[in-house]
Amino acid sequence: MNADRRPELLDELRAIVGADAVVADADMVERTTRSCLPFRTTPQAVVYPQSAEQVQEVVRLAARAGVPVWPVSTGRNWGYGEKLAVYDEGITLVLERMNRILHVDEQLAYAVIEPGVTYQQINDHLKRTGSRLWADCPGSTPLASVLGNALDKGRGLTPMADHFGAMCGFDVVLPDGTLLETGGGPACGNAVRHTYKWGVGPYTDGLFAQSNLGVVVKAGVWLMPAPDVFDFAAFEYKAGPERLGAFIDDLQQLVMARAVRSFPHLANDFAMMCILAQYPHDKLQPGTRRLSDAAAAAWRREHGVAPWTFGCGLYGSREEVAYQRRMIKRVLGRYGMVQFIGAAVRDDAVGRVVRWAAPKVNRLMGKSPQFTDVMLPAINLYRGIPTDLFVRQAYFKSHAEKPATDIDPARDGCGFVWVGPVVPFRSADVMSCLRMTKAIFDRHDFDFFVEVIVESPRSAIVLVGVFYDKHDPAEADRARAWYHEAVGAYLDAGYPPYRVTPMSQPQALARNPAARDFIAKVKGAVDPGNVIAPGRYGAPMRDR
Amino acid sequence: MNADRRPELLDELRAIVGADAVVADADMVERTTRSCLPFRTTPQAVVYPQSAEQVQEVVRLAARAGVPVWPVSTGRNWGYGEKLAVYDEGITLVLERMNRILHVDEQLAYAVIEPGVTYQQINDHLKRTGSRLWADCPGSTPLASVLGNALDKGRGLTPMADHFGAMCGFDVVLPDGTLLETGGGPACGNAVRHTYKWGVGPYTDGLFAQSNLGVVVKAGVWLMPAPDVFDFAAFEYKAGPERLGAFIDDLQQLVMARAVRSFPHLANDFAMMCILAQYPHDKLQPGTRRLSDAAAAAWRREHGVAPWTFGCGLYGSREEVAYQRRMIKRVLGRYGMVQFIGAAVRDDAVGRVVRWAAPKVNRLMGKSPQFTDVMLPAINLYRGIPTDLFVRQAYFKSHAEKPATDIDPARDGCGFVWVGPVVPFRSADVMSCLRMTKAIFDRHDFDFFVEVIVESPRSAIVLVGVFYDKHDPAEADRARAWYHEAVGAYLDAGYPPYRVTPMSQPQALARNPAARDFIAKVKGAVDPGNVIAPGRYGAPMRDR
Repeated sequence: MNADRRPELLDELRAIVGADAVVADADMVERTTRSCLPFRTTPQAVVYPQSAEQVQEVVRLAARAGVPVWPVSTGRNWGYGEKLAVYDEGITLVLERMNRILHVDEQLAYAVIEPGVTYQQINDHLKRTGSRLWADCPGSTPLASVLGNALDKGRGLTPMADHFGAMCGFDVVLPDGTLLETGGGPACGNAVRHTYKWGVGPYTDGLFAQSNLGVVVKAGVWLMPAPDVFDFAAFEYKAGPERLGAFIDDLQQLVMARAVRSFPHLANDFAMMCILAQYPHDKLQPGTRRLSDAAAAAWRREHGVAPWTFGCGLYGSREEVAYQRRMIKRVLGRYGMVQFIGAAVRDDAVGRVVRWAAPKVNRLMGKSPQFTDVMLPAINLYRGIPTDLFVRQAYFKSHAEKPATDIDPARDGCGFVWVGPVVPFRSADVMSCLRMTKAIFDRHDFDFFVEVIVESPRSAIVLVGVFYDKHDPAEADRARAWYHEAVGAYLDAGYPPYRVTPMSQPQALARNPAARDFIAKVKGAVDPGNVIAPGRYGAPMRDR
Repeated sequence: MNADRRPELLDELRAIVGADAVVADADMVERTTRSCLPFRTTPQAVVYPQSAEQVQEVVRLAARAGVPVWPVSTGRNWGYGEKLAVYDEGITLVLERMNRILHVDEQLAYAVIEPGVTYQQINDHLKRTGSRLWADCPGSTPLASVLGNALDKGRGLTPMADHFGAMCGFDVVLPDGTLLETGGGPACGNAVRHTYKWGVGPYTDGLFAQSNLGVVVKAGVWLMPAPDVFDFAAFEYKAGPERLGAFIDDLQQLVMARAVRSFPHLANDFAMMCILAQYPHDKLQPGTRRLSDAAAAAWRREHGVAPWTFGCGLYGSREEVAYQRRMIKRVLGRYGMVQFIGAAVRDDAVGRVVRWAAPKVNRLMGKSPQFTDVMLPAINLYRGIPTDLFVRQAYFKSHAEKPATDIDPARDGCGFVWVGPVVPFRSADVMSCLRMTKAIFDRHDFDFFVEVIVESPRSAIVLVGVFYDKHDPAEADRARAWYHEAVGAYLDAGYPPYRVTPMSQPQALARNPAARDFIAKVKGAVDPGNVIAPGRYGAPMRDR
């Protein structure tokens, strides 16, 4: 990657977006583009356009200047890449100041938004306007971008968890600076561009997910009407490990039968502990880098944590929720404890009683007080109400304690990395993926963090991550080695990660040469100068 | 379009696919490529490859020979285009002999199929193997291709009605003859290519819908498990026309609340009559070409047909179906008569009683005997069991009677054309579209045939069609004029048709120049010789 710095480029950028929207001071650029990954690239400038027109002008300027543009929405996908390009010296385009909610259609249940709109913002907007609609949100930060998360194929928890699936109709700034309205109907007047997903002619929205073919500056996002009845099931797996496979298959059938309509994350004990506690450095044997099995088991028992834990929302009419309760109780009850505690978020006498009783019940069951702290935020996530309670786990090992507010693990030097292979949602594949994952963790001497995410009735994501000390180069090397071995092993096994970080984006399609070459041809035609995000997700690097 | 005939081309084709798989005799080509449209093009040969390898070789040969290839699956999309290219003298590639069902995954509910697999075939296969899975089907012929219908964004009736939405993971022969596995994961070993829709990197399946960027030779298609309980609601709208808008909004809310889980077609009286009767030529005033309002009303009253009629399936657990029944009865009951008659398809004493009683009840209600004939096939469609009973309407005006078997309206010279604009699913748009549609029918002197198809909770398709005499050039002109005015008017109004026929495919993106130019760039890169289906859906014609 060779991009020369031309002093006049900054002036030209300032002329487009304004002086306060160009960050070029080296210290400020460093701060702005920090990452949780064991990987670093640095742009020559970070630019904050405020409109589609400014994006168009920046893209045109970048093409003339021969400097690539790496667009991110808010860049808060911590542990997945944040604002990091796969190369140095480019222009990083942060779209967070384009944050208008342009329209909410109450009857047809969709919104039209810009890339800077956050989960917190859309949630606040819906509440403030008295809307009956809910927006899904991820378990990550409330300040993540709705659009950015969707374009990265991020996931939520409610029935609208498939964030890319809920997107419909984009405005895209193409690499030549023109503005494309997807959907294929009449430009500037297509009445169904945010209601009819597949459009006229080839469906092109998908080309702008995990890609570098344009900058999405506006999108329709489908919302869900609040259900008549909401409830929440908290589940703890208490059966032995030999029954986990049968449990996976039974859970899959519940999802297929729509008895489980939300998309829960099954957290293993260590993943639960990251939320409830700080890392017990004192429990490490001298000279070791992860907890022994005995120490880990003792530690989780102190907190009353089960081997696997998850929650799921129940949604619908009273009859539908009755069905979901009946099935969840019957099927999951075979493997552990199910509690229906959705009433805890009710704003009435029942809700007050449940909230009052919760700490007492938890204590009786041998659970730590932190269980009570996470109860309401966890339930609310399944109503699309974002929280930063869970993302605070980023501080769990690197810091003495988790901050209460102003969470920013990238800025604060927390080191962690995610990998999420997709597997067929059946015991043989899930168990096989768990076994190989455990072996990789053991080989690299990391504590085993895993969540099995229900992606659909047909697929699951085995989300794994490691926490490491960013200030220790040997630790960073270890995390990097873990990442690359894991990604490679998942591809060998046929379980491609649903997202990859900039550490491996240029190689994302290396195992599928026909797909890589096809995308390369499309990229070459649409972006002959390779202006937009070269190297993102398998599309060619600039120097190819 | 200028493609010279080279005598050796046929020999080369025969060397690839075998002599019996190349049709070049002018009479046979004419028969094979007949259409219901007032439009005609003729290829120099029709070729029936039997494998992906043969498709690859044919595409490579076509590129060398400079002759374009127009792929169709079975080409039985009567009134939408059948096997017609938008130009003469090409090679038409009919994929119906590639008809293997390669895999059915019972737990994860999907199949992997080739383009020649028909709805009848997959349904028979599932029944024969004792599968608990259902495949959706359209109301059209059982001999339509599952894959072809999906790539044309066709629709069914069950909860899996979104045929393209149910596709996951393609094998595609690209214009240079290479084979692409979509999904982006590791080629030849991606375990989730048929279970995880969005894949790795840009989502490319969508590029092969309504397009000409490759030939899809294999696909995953998601199926649905048979529900615990099935029922069927038959509805007749009896309220006045002034309440139709309120009814549309209420129906939309039922769909949004998943109280209606299937995707019904609301047929107007004329559309119902096409199914139940033959065209009453004797009721035409001398010199007129459509029924007077009074004659049409009298005719439908003879048969006991309501102004609007539809059926919908109920699916789920007993609690869920109880909810659906409660809501359908309460909400639709305000506008007409609801009857729950799903028991008619039960294979038990209850079913026998309902079937015995049906003709008597119908007679009492003043309905023609044909109502009873369509009952079982109509209900079964909502269980994914295909029938040719409804597509026989193609013969309704042009023939004295509908054939009982061996339906092929294109071969048999039936003239009809479909247009289906997509509108936001709310009264203002649906009613506005119905009004403008009626005016267009009146202007062109056709009987008003319309179905309002529930596409999703957010969009509806206003499907309209005309029947004309194919043997009368003036009638064909009139049908053509109707089609072009309708398509133009819908685009003006912002309601793009969800499919268009070869009569207007080359102009399909004319109202969205940025989209047209984007697709043209992609096409130019992927298919520089313009070998595959030039002109299909807005992608460039060969002579551009």
